[in-house]
Amino acid sequence: MTTLGDIGVAAAINIGSAFLFFLAFAILRLQPFNDRVYFPKWYLKGLRTDPVHGGVFVRKFVNLDWRAYLGFLNWMPEALRMPEPELIDHAGLDSVVYLRIYLLGLKIFVPIAFLAWIVLVPVNWTSTGLEGAKNITSSDIDKLSVSNVHSRSERFWGHIVMAYAFTFWVCYILLKEYEKVASMRLEFLATEKRRPDQFTVLVRNIPPDPDESVSELVEHFFMVNHPGHYLTHQVGFPGYFKNDNFYCCFKYAVSPLATVSIFMFLPVPLLIVNNNFLFSDEVIYDANTLAKLVKKKKKLQNWLVYYRNKLERTSKRPEMKTGFLGLWGKKVDAIDYHTTEIDKLSEEIASERKKVTDDPKSVMPAAFVSFKTRWVAAVCAQTQQTRNPTLWLTEWAPEPRDVYWRNLPIPYFSLSVRRLIMAVAFFFLTFFFMIPIAFVQTLASIEGIERTAPWLNPLVTVPFIKSFIQGFLPGIVLKLFLIFLPTILMIMSKFEGFGSISSLERRSASRYYLFNFVNIFLGNVLTGSAFQQLNSFVHQPANQYPITIGTAIPLKATFFITYIMVDGWASIAAEVLMLKPLIFYHLKNFFLVKTEKDREEAMDPGSIGFNTGEPRIQLYFLLGLVYAAVTPAVLPFIIIFFGLAYVVFRHQIINVYNQEYESGAQFWPDVHGRIVIALTVSQIVLMGLLTTKKAASSTPFLIVLPILTIWFYRYCKGRFEPAFVKFPLQEAMMKDTLEKATEPHLNLKGYLHNAYIHPVFKDSMDDEDDDDDTFSNNWDTESMTVRTKRHSQRHTPLPSRISGTSSPPQSPFAGDGLQNEP
Amino acid sequence: MTTLGDIGVAAAINIGSAFLFFLAFAILRLQPFNDRVYFPKWYLKGLRTDPVHGGVFVRKFVNLDWRAYLGFLNWMPEALRMPEPELIDHAGLDSVVYLRIYLLGLKIFVPIAFLAWIVLVPVNWTSTGLEGAKNITSSDIDKLSVSNVHSRSERFWGHIVMAYAFTFWVCYILLKEYEKVASMRLEFLATEKRRPDQFTVLVRNIPPDPDESVSELVEHFFMVNHPGHYLTHQVGFPGYFKNDNFYCCFKYAVSPLATVSIFMFLPVPLLIVNNNFLFSDEVIYDANTLAKLVKKKKKLQNWLVYYRNKLERTSKRPEMKTGFLGLWGKKVDAIDYHTTEIDKLSEEIASERKKVTDDPKSVMPAAFVSFKTRWVAAVCAQTQQTRNPTLWLTEWAPEPRDVYWRNLPIPYFSLSVRRLIMAVAFFFLTFFFMIPIAFVQTLASIEGIERTAPWLNPLVTVPFIKSFIQGFLPGIVLKLFLIFLPTILMIMSKFEGFGSISSLERRSASRYYLFNFVNIFLGNVLTGSAFQQLNSFVHQPANQYPITIGTAIPLKATFFITYIMVDGWASIAAEVLMLKPLIFYHLKNFFLVKTEKDREEAMDPGSIGFNTGEPRIQLYFLLGLVYAAVTPAVLPFIIIFFGLAYVVFRHQIINVYNQEYESGAQFWPDVHGRIVIALTVSQIVLMGLLTTKKAASSTPFLIVLPILTIWFYRYCKGRFEPAFVKFPLQEAMMKDTLEKATEPHLNLKGYLHNAYIHPVFKDSMDDEDDDDDTFSNNWDTESMTVRTKRHSQRHTPLPSRISGTSSPPQSPFAGDGLQNEP
Repeated sequence: MTTLGDIGVAAAINIGSAFLFFLAFAILRLQPFNDRVYFPKWYLKGLRTDPVHGGVFVRKFVNLDWRAYLGFLNWMPEALRMPEPELIDHAGLDSVVYLRIYLLGLKIFVPIAFLAWIVLVPVNWTSTGLEGAKNITSSDIDKLSVSNVHSRSERFWGHIVMAYAFTFWVCYILLKEYEKVASMRLEFLATEKRRPDQFTVLVRNIPPDPDESVSELVEHFFMVNHPGHYLTHQVGFPGYFKNDNFYCCFKYAVSPLATVSIFMFLPVPLLIVNNNFLFSDEVIYDANTLAKLVKKKKKLQNWLVYYRNKLERTSKRPEMKTGFLGLWGKKVDAIDYHTTEIDKLSEEIASERKKVTDDPKSVMPAAFVSFKTRWVAAVCAQTQQTRNPTLWLTEWAPEPRDVYWRNLPIPYFSLSVRRLIMAVAFFFLTFFFMIPIAFVQTLASIEGIERTAPWLNPLVTVPFIKSFIQGFLPGIVLKLFLIFLPTILMIMSKFEGFGSISSLERRSASRYYLFNFVNIFLGNVLTGSAFQQLNSFVHQPANQYPITIGTAIPLKATFFITYIMVDGWASIAAEVLMLKPLIFYHLKNFFLVKTEKDREEAMDPGSIGFNTGEPRIQLYFLLGLVYAAVTPAVLPFIIIFFGLAYVVFRHQIINVYNQEYESGAQFWPDVHGRIVIALTVSQIVLMGLLTTKKAASSTPFLIVLPILTIWFYRYCKGRFEPAFVKFPLQEAMMKDTLEKATEPHLNLKGYLHNAYIHPVFKDSMDDEDDDDDTFSNNWDTESMTVRTKRHSQRHTPLPSRISGTSSPPQSPFAGDGLQNEP
Repeated sequence: MTTLGDIGVAAAINIGSAFLFFLAFAILRLQPFNDRVYFPKWYLKGLRTDPVHGGVFVRKFVNLDWRAYLGFLNWMPEALRMPEPELIDHAGLDSVVYLRIYLLGLKIFVPIAFLAWIVLVPVNWTSTGLEGAKNITSSDIDKLSVSNVHSRSERFWGHIVMAYAFTFWVCYILLKEYEKVASMRLEFLATEKRRPDQFTVLVRNIPPDPDESVSELVEHFFMVNHPGHYLTHQVGFPGYFKNDNFYCCFKYAVSPLATVSIFMFLPVPLLIVNNNFLFSDEVIYDANTLAKLVKKKKKLQNWLVYYRNKLERTSKRPEMKTGFLGLWGKKVDAIDYHTTEIDKLSEEIASERKKVTDDPKSVMPAAFVSFKTRWVAAVCAQTQQTRNPTLWLTEWAPEPRDVYWRNLPIPYFSLSVRRLIMAVAFFFLTFFFMIPIAFVQTLASIEGIERTAPWLNPLVTVPFIKSFIQGFLPGIVLKLFLIFLPTILMIMSKFEGFGSISSLERRSASRYYLFNFVNIFLGNVLTGSAFQQLNSFVHQPANQYPITIGTAIPLKATFFITYIMVDGWASIAAEVLMLKPLIFYHLKNFFLVKTEKDREEAMDPGSIGFNTGEPRIQLYFLLGLVYAAVTPAVLPFIIIFFGLAYVVFRHQIINVYNQEYESGAQFWPDVHGRIVIALTVSQIVLMGLLTTKKAASSTPFLIVLPILTIWFYRYCKGRFEPAFVKFPLQEAMMKDTLEKATEPHLNLKGYLHNAYIHPVFKDSMDDEDDDDDTFSNNWDTESMTVRTKRHSQRHTPLPSRISGTSSPPQSPFAGDGLQNEP
């Protein structure tokens, strides 16, 4: 048993390391040569440029102003200063609502901790239940916990009343928060500027037609069924991803999947058998050539920029050799050579692109259909189109950058089968993941190596290597698996066929949460592997479950306190230091960067990472709620986590993370649901615990709580969830009317006609159609000014790609926000 | 243990009684004076009139033609003769699809029985597992069952393969059937004639507005949010039902609720506390006066008809006394007196109606909104209207006769609370219903009576009464409860707040099924009351459940065979005899009937009664599937049930039952789901059974089956269920286009303006607005002829009630189909 002193030592170590991280961060962030690592968001937004002081050369790299170092925690109040509406503008609603999860943690746990310390701690502390116990060595922490109360004591009424109070408080705060987030979302959707997805619906499972191409079919269908409202549509070309799901699995996941595939013994043969039948409807045209050409052209363009810069600097036309790596071959003028090469490539790309677009087989049975008004788009997204509800499936189009193209053509039946396969695979992954790990660990042990690779014997007998293998390798194998786990879960979600990146992340998050719940929470509370637990649960009576967990919970309080300090405090502090991006940036900067564009690409701002971040927060909610009534001593540690994380992530969101997509806080129902699950688990655990304490007369009063909590969940679901799935017609109508009044001559078709285009085509059209792109980007960012500029184009229904060249070409970078597929 | 001989005796008794019922039916149905009991459907459709032979007087009552009695089972082939499309026309889609459930039973069980008898019976029969067992007395039936196979035998592979075969067969048939029913439903909706509900949407939870009345608010809201499509609307007046939910509960259910309310100890106080907050939004205007006046007028009109008939028959003006029961008072001319009284009442009704309609408080916050096209109605029913998803809730309007008016004004939050209360109440009802019954039984025992009512002592000591009390009363108490159970469940569904009769019946059916599953299936398989079972289940490990049930299942085969014969054979045969309606009809005919209308009302055709009938069929599906692989001997009995019931109910639907509403087979997803549940239960039971037989090597192969079955259910849900909830836009558009082409000058507003009107108002307008009613009825039944007739009205947008009097008044009865609220 851990004493208070032990926890003090652990706290000191973790506080110390957190302090060190913060100190390092404070120093590093002030150095100009790290500026792009610690403030990439501002660079991406074009609001910050490389610091070029007129002064001494060294000032460009090192900050010599000693005053800057004085307030080394100044970034914290700075991070808190930006008001919420401005933050929404700056980083999007997703990020802001994500931050609210941490705030929610504070809102829930500060009053609960207060109440618990005022009421429960005295009740527990003044008991003497542990003094009589002989075979249990109790720590000071345990004296604060419910373990210290005598069996059959009347004091348990205090815990029950507190459980009610906690439940009502959590539900109240959750209700308020759901209300707030729902109204923020609707506000966001209502006040934001015109976006293509407001007018657009994603149509999947378009049935094949012998007489018409997909494009014609879509046009006719919507012309007939939404007469007078249909505007335009874009079909996707998935040719790029030849048999892509397998391809991607094997490409990205050979190493982690090798471990997982072992438990996939059931689904894998199924997959092989069903290969044909699962993927028969997918298109197999190979557009890899196009993608390769586009990539090559980009590279050449980058070199061209480099040589031009060189010309400017040195005023001497640069020369190069045409042979391998520029080491031999004919000497030519580099700029001329690249220009002609690029022209050649552009032609090739154009013909290749034509080949792909003209091939009817390369068109996938999915399309983005745009309508004249938001109202009709809202209608079409929410209704069923044909008799067969698995054809012509309509849903809100995700943001263009949020589209996950390769999943769009998957037919309904295949989706259904994939979901089954992944459900089974996830079950095995959760409960049996230790089996392959143990197997790899045996291989990686001394004996394993001696048996499988005897020629390594001389090496492994070296004492240092031997101790390394014995001491670290097994741990590293497990750690590697856990590091790859989010990737594995993401691949599983991709295989399941979700059509947008945001939904992929939401799905992965819920799976990761389940994994954590079973393997971190239950896995540490109970003994044995997840599979052993499953086995023992199956062989236990149903009313024994809460008792088993309830008995173990108070004993594990000190363990979880240490866990919170290591995982919650120190690693949050490490997050702000951004060690990996820092090192990579400087390495790339040193070896690879030639042009400004390369430097842009060397930045790795990262993103919030909802699929890993949110399940981690949820673990703290779970721990906090479970221990609130059992061992209130855990709560302060959790509060510190939430406070620290809130500040750190607010800073990161303001200065670092690059938003990959904007889903308008669509993840909130999941967050809400998981907190409700945590609440229910905490109630059941408390019930089990009190049963072991033989507080039989009071325990039945706790049965009401889970019932009420589940009812609360269902009520909230009905009351708020539609706001995250549907789009109310009234809002759409209001916005349409407003727009019609303010911009009566809007050329919506021009605005929409290229919004949803497959990235490989977008890229391949980049320079030829810069004007075209700019056109739509202008609409995006500065519709008001464009309206006056474009008077002459008002009546051109569909500006052709060539006719638009009159407008001045803008930096291709300005539009990247829309084109980047992360 | 029952032997084959015992079962033979039981079969003989039940076959005999079924035969007797059929014989009695064959004789009774041929008697002319029973015609209205056995063919009421044809009377209601106006296709059959009272048999008035010109011949002998006795012929009017008794059929003396001996040849008619020869083929006494002739009605069976007759019942099967009517083809399905004609039957849909005759009795509606609901009835036809309901019959398909029986057919489905035959389709599933005939091949299964065939396979089982070919494969499993020889496998079981040739085993000798039961010979060795000493302490079990085995019957012949058991020799055919899986009990006869040795533990650890390799023969169990046969059962496993059969379980797979059965599962695939059932799923295949279910899939085909779902497909068929879904297409029948869409076909039905597409080909049926114009109906008000195609254009209409039910809007609930209209928020109160300080400036506008509900009617104005509705009009403005839909004019703005569905511009150009809004046509008209009707608001409801619920004043009739003052605080109605309690009122109705106490009025209809004092006796059964007295027993139920005992387990409602939890919800009842909640209800009392929340009374204000649950029902605060309900309107309390009392329109009882109006209803009473309408009733009184109807009675007077009936007398008027009676006296006029008398005048015709006797050619002498009838006289009457105005005093009590016509026994004293002034003598007046009866016809004149009634005419003036009716006129007086009509005026009173008109003013009372005006009072109700003008009072803004009496308007409920719900409305039926009609649109110009089916397309917009489909759109509006499927979309969310405002930011707050609990306001302006839209759904497809049920048929006018299907509307359950009193539940329309319940607000969302109250609905949510009601659902929670009823879920808890139903749990107690299912598991603890024996407690109050046992209590009543104690009261009804000799000792109970002696204790509580000592003054009855002289009576209960009479030997006959004593033996009656001891022998029958406890059984009668239980039987009474079971007879009232569907009513109790219906009241619970009504309390939950569903808005249409069809949904009330569906909800009651699913509750009844659960009750049957727990109390009839599990209750007979296991020993002890439901509560004891629950208790033992809670104290058992999860993997023990299937074993407990699996062990008991084969032993109960003979019991269930007897159950099937009593409940399935004999009582189905009794159904056709219609004993209760027969007796009641003749009693009423003898004592009460004065006019033709009275005779109409004395008929009691009844209806299918989905809420009791379907759960009963499901029990047979459950028994059949569970015993298919365990004791195939049960299957023939089930097949006979399905065949017999199919014929009997087809006959009843053609000749007797009066359809209360038409929901377009909306119940099919429930039926499908419950069969899937039965299938899953059967697989789990088999798994448990094989575990006890120690067939450990083969049992794991069965785990795959429930997973696949549940996946199958989810697939079907996604694939077909939308057809029963939503209405595809394509279909709506097709029908709109067709209609526009064939009837370009249709006055839709006139057609719809009175379609959804509260019955009490409809009744009160009956004679004044006969023309008006007829107008809409004409549209309903003969739109083609009306179109040509009504040329002059084409351009009248909203014919006022008075202006229409020029058209000839028709029988008010013709429209009753729409007005009847059952």
